[in-house]
Amino acid sequence: MQIECIDMWYLKEPVVEDIGDGSQDALIIRLNLSGHIGWGECEAAPLTTVAAMFAPMSHAACKPIFYDLVGRDISGPESIKKLSSEVKRNTMDHLQAPHAWSGIEMALWDALGKAVETPVWELLGYKVSHGKRPYASSLFGETPEETYYKGKEIRDKGFFAAKFGWAQFGMNDLSSDVQQLHAAREGIGPDLDLFIDAGQIFEGRFEEAKERLSALEKVKAGWFEEPFGGQSYASYSALKRCTTIRLAGGEASHSYEMAINCIEYGSVDVIQIDCGRIGGIWPATEVAKYAQKKKIQFVNHTFTSHLALSASLQPFAGIHEYNICEYPSNPKPLAREIAGEVLLPSANTLIYAPESPGLGVEVNIETLKKYSQNVKIEVSGKILYETPVIDS
Amino acid sequence: MQIECIDMWYLKEPVVEDIGDGSQDALIIRLNLSGHIGWGECEAAPLTTVAAMFAPMSHAACKPIFYDLVGRDISGPESIKKLSSEVKRNTMDHLQAPHAWSGIEMALWDALGKAVETPVWELLGYKVSHGKRPYASSLFGETPEETYYKGKEIRDKGFFAAKFGWAQFGMNDLSSDVQQLHAAREGIGPDLDLFIDAGQIFEGRFEEAKERLSALEKVKAGWFEEPFGGQSYASYSALKRCTTIRLAGGEASHSYEMAINCIEYGSVDVIQIDCGRIGGIWPATEVAKYAQKKKIQFVNHTFTSHLALSASLQPFAGIHEYNICEYPSNPKPLAREIAGEVLLPSANTLIYAPESPGLGVEVNIETLKKYSQNVKIEVSGKILYETPVIDS
Repeated sequence: MQIECIDMWYLKEPVVEDIGDGSQDALIIRLNLSGHIGWGECEAAPLTTVAAMFAPMSHAACKPIFYDLVGRDISGPESIKKLSSEVKRNTMDHLQAPHAWSGIEMALWDALGKAVETPVWELLGYKVSHGKRPYASSLFGETPEETYYKGKEIRDKGFFAAKFGWAQFGMNDLSSDVQQLHAAREGIGPDLDLFIDAGQIFEGRFEEAKERLSALEKVKAGWFEEPFGGQSYASYSALKRCTTIRLAGGEASHSYEMAINCIEYGSVDVIQIDCGRIGGIWPATEVAKYAQKKKIQFVNHTFTSHLALSASLQPFAGIHEYNICEYPSNPKPLAREIAGEVLLPSANTLIYAPESPGLGVEVNIETLKKYSQNVKIEVSGKILYETPVIDS
Repeated sequence: MQIECIDMWYLKEPVVEDIGDGSQDALIIRLNLSGHIGWGECEAAPLTTVAAMFAPMSHAACKPIFYDLVGRDISGPESIKKLSSEVKRNTMDHLQAPHAWSGIEMALWDALGKAVETPVWELLGYKVSHGKRPYASSLFGETPEETYYKGKEIRDKGFFAAKFGWAQFGMNDLSSDVQQLHAAREGIGPDLDLFIDAGQIFEGRFEEAKERLSALEKVKAGWFEEPFGGQSYASYSALKRCTTIRLAGGEASHSYEMAINCIEYGSVDVIQIDCGRIGGIWPATEVAKYAQKKKIQFVNHTFTSHLALSASLQPFAGIHEYNICEYPSNPKPLAREIAGEVLLPSANTLIYAPESPGLGVEVNIETLKKYSQNVKIEVSGKILYETPVIDS
């Protein structure tokens, strides 16, 4: 089978707010593999990512993603892995490239799965897609009261666990954060698991991260996520020596190697991988297998649509002991409408990487039409990219 | 003083070849700081980098570089460092951002230096700009004979050392590489230092890198550069245990933290930093100081113009023991013409970060006109970027 055509759409909410909510825009990829349509989603700044797809070559190791892709033969999983290696080499100095490639790689697995009528997780070598308990991922409220009610809502919906993060956490004094932590715990009640995501806010402020540990212990936090920047491994491992709270990180990884470094040097207890950033489904699967050997937790990082969610579930679908997954509990309408909310009929059920071929979710064409931005990129009179007409 | 205006131009050779020569295009930044003009150069895919400057905000941590920059007050070095931290936080999830910010940060130092009539290295806290011995950086020839003559030319010009890399090295069998290594040594003669740059070609092929060590020892290589990918620290440190040849790396670092990890976990003997990638002059300076404490070699990574070269010299200008620097010995005409070849009057002289204010080099306006590409980026009817007219 051959890659015949790859199209992409930059979708955006009418208003994008200056908040830590990654569901406000999207770059959706549609790939045609000898008539079989695959979909993918880059977790990335859409315009920059489109430019990375089509940018003129700078030199041998700084090529665009669209370099000799169309016409390539894809006969099975090995062809996807081989093409990924080639793209990685070709784009070594093109920084945005892994975020761009991620969406295409996803779409390749989806199309291949549909072509051979097999779910992606089975193409990855798994025999069974095990159910995962979804934890509801949410921003902290602007006030402790708001956080309390968000927590209560998550509990009322029946989730087993909640994650709170970003907003003002780490931006004010210690007592504000302590209040937020207690409000979150009170909102969800004593029995639910509580995860806290600092969103890298304590980068360069180690002591302030350390000061939060006692409150995290008091509210029985299940993990403390991204206290520092994605490459600040020494800070992670130093903080780990100060607490029994588990540390989580890895979402910033834009290569397999970075995720492994986060495990080996950052000593994280929970490695969190976003398939829309790390280079797609295959490198994420390799990280899941590595984590299994190291006996640490692997979990997806997903804050957007059910297309991204299905892709993120595939890498650890077949690993029984990884039985929880991140679930974006309150994304913007755009993210809800991309593929619908098909993977979780209700909060207290398990969530599965689908049994149907490919990624098992369908992109809603009406959503593309509704949110699509008209992009045009021209270099020296030549149009390198123009948003394609949505044909059906 | 205020940032009044920032302009940029994408320059390109008429033909860009599929070779490892990074001097075939450029993104040049011009910044107006209350009337003082500063210049910078991103070592990055130009079109993607322009998009990263102007891409609409995706969320709080995925903003464009051009977010609230114009009008900002820059009163001294601390303002540049503070603004850099803010940009880093604002663009945490915007992968291309460090490559984009690098050029602006350079231009800020240049403009500030001109405003206060001080060379950048003095603004960085150094008392003296020490001379560095330039080593001539070149691609391997397509054949051993070609490499031999390239080496001979470098010796005849009077350089003390040569670096060869890329081309076919590591792409064929061991004996081809051995022949190339011996041709390089024979070309430059027995007395010059010889550095070898594998350009990450042995990523995932540890044993093949190891097989080259004996030949590298025979030709008395001064270092072996980037045998593996920029984040494959475990492979670096494993290779180091197999040889007395020094290992060099770090050019792929797009943050201070990544360079430190390369030192701490990759165990490199030589840390090579490109100011056009790491986020500019200040993070590179911090790496140089860290390297000094760790008693390892710091050296610039530069493959383009003398503007980039001056910027790359600043971070270690005042550190006496770092007495060599990379010099692009055979760049394309574009790179030669951006700022002329002002820093090295002849090969056997020392090269200095200039004594004149700022970066001490001037960009040739005629070069901008000659090589400029007309770029236009439009989103939903709004022009986000259009190549500015070159006004003087």
